[in-house]
Amino acid sequence: MSLVIIGSVAFDAIETPFGKTDKIVGGAATYASISASYLFDNIKIVGVIGEDFGKENLNKITSKGIDIEGLQMKEGEKSFFWSGKYHNDMNSRDTLVTELNVLADFNPLIPDSYQDCQYLLLGNLTPQVQLQTLERFKKKPKLVVLDTMNFWMDIALDDLLSVLKKVDVLTINDEEARQLSGEYSLVKAANKILTMGPKYLIIKKGEHGALLFGEDQIFSAPALPLADVFDPTGAGDTFAGGFIGYLAKVGSITFNNMKNAVVFGSALASFCVEKFGTERIEDLSEEDISKRINSFVSLSQFNIKR
Amino acid sequence: MSLVIIGSVAFDAIETPFGKTDKIVGGAATYASISASYLFDNIKIVGVIGEDFGKENLNKITSKGIDIEGLQMKEGEKSFFWSGKYHNDMNSRDTLVTELNVLADFNPLIPDSYQDCQYLLLGNLTPQVQLQTLERFKKKPKLVVLDTMNFWMDIALDDLLSVLKKVDVLTINDEEARQLSGEYSLVKAANKILTMGPKYLIIKKGEHGALLFGEDQIFSAPALPLADVFDPTGAGDTFAGGFIGYLAKVGSITFNNMKNAVVFGSALASFCVEKFGTERIEDLSEEDISKRINSFVSLSQFNIKR
Repeated sequence: MSLVIIGSVAFDAIETPFGKTDKIVGGAATYASISASYLFDNIKIVGVIGEDFGKENLNKITSKGIDIEGLQMKEGEKSFFWSGKYHNDMNSRDTLVTELNVLADFNPLIPDSYQDCQYLLLGNLTPQVQLQTLERFKKKPKLVVLDTMNFWMDIALDDLLSVLKKVDVLTINDEEARQLSGEYSLVKAANKILTMGPKYLIIKKGEHGALLFGEDQIFSAPALPLADVFDPTGAGDTFAGGFIGYLAKVGSITFNNMKNAVVFGSALASFCVEKFGTERIEDLSEEDISKRINSFVSLSQFNIKR
Repeated sequence: MSLVIIGSVAFDAIETPFGKTDKIVGGAATYASISASYLFDNIKIVGVIGEDFGKENLNKITSKGIDIEGLQMKEGEKSFFWSGKYHNDMNSRDTLVTELNVLADFNPLIPDSYQDCQYLLLGNLTPQVQLQTLERFKKKPKLVVLDTMNFWMDIALDDLLSVLKKVDVLTINDEEARQLSGEYSLVKAANKILTMGPKYLIIKKGEHGALLFGEDQIFSAPALPLADVFDPTGAGDTFAGGFIGYLAKVGSITFNNMKNAVVFGSALASFCVEKFGTERIEDLSEEDISKRINSFVSLSQFNIKR
């Protein structure tokens, strides 16, 4: 029984008010699989890299015991590259460069050894590729989580709506929920999106935490209040990886487990933003994570005796 | 032992995307005292009204058993009047009319019978009047909570800083916390504001809930996700009333009790926004409140077994 994660494995160059980086390792599948690896140990990724990616960079993933049989390497080609600059409030950013490179004609291949997949994370990518991936599993996984973004709503809405019909959980941010539903109120937005296919919806609100909707219930998870958000890149992917990693670990899909999964996703994302790129999530100890979960408990749990 | 609340008792005319009202009863002390009355039963208010306020309107307050000996009535004068229009997102509003009337030269008088005050809420008013009120208590109350707004930071910052030195808890919204501290990060803003006098700070974030800072701890309370916010007027006052009402009831100032007080304040504020003005909070039953508290529990409580 495995957790399969599809998404980009790529290079980023990031500028924030705290500094800037050269090309560093990024990509949705990179963040999500590293994050999930702290919770579950049979993780396999699907993706594509160029010859430029390099063994040392790949080691950030393989050193976590993550299976890369489904990660194609295209000789003579270059990896996907994104460069962006965050504004002072860290809630908005400008894309400076997008070079699709190997992603331009990405054909996701699912190795036979991946067919034991029970938990599938369709990380942020073209909805068409997300759908292809899903259809290439002979048996529908027990839980399919889809992450996407406003960009695909702008240019590939029909494809996105097609894949949405086949997933169990959708994770998007508040502005994306408003865009997808045409509703300003997040409650109305959620009600509408839950008629589009997913049984559960997670709305990520950055510094304001996350909302989980499903089974006629709502869960509101806080974000850890931080003095500085150093670099938000990958926080959403890290959240998604922690979320599905927790569910794969406990192996049972109940609303209470979903709640806990949101807390683990939030905790891992709270590390991610503390340094540039994947740096902060590369070497977390069990104690780091346990302490961070305790912070979320004291941050949000109360006890009213009546 | 009593809870004393000072603030405006006034008329409002409100326009929201859902409709508009004629002159209806409003005012910080009105909302806060009605809200607190569901939790504590020895409440006294300090304020001033004009001859136009009328007995029927006063009945909204007195019917809750609230003592109005400290509420001056100025014959031949008119009550404070505010009129405003909310924008579509409900997070911003334009003030259309402000008629100070009796508030222009308000001299707060504290009846002898109020000197048993142990819990004091200095509702949103001129900081100078808030300070005068506090100084007219012969014995410093056990807990002083101050509510204020950006308007006073703009025109009476020195007075505000003076009264801040003498209070235990400050409640403001996120934009006001940023304005008062000059810091964008709410964690940095809170750290700075906690050097200005208050031992505790509550930052109200509207639909994103509230943050409580103090004793080197942080508590994050959710807001109840609502399909429609009908009218946000008075929600902050209702929050403050529920907050201090709960603390007066339990009679002990610990961080855990403060957390619960924030939840009760949030629950009462969640009713307030469901209808225009004070309408929704005028006749709540114990069951209404108990059910709403249960909603906050299921909304935000989780149980991670390790």
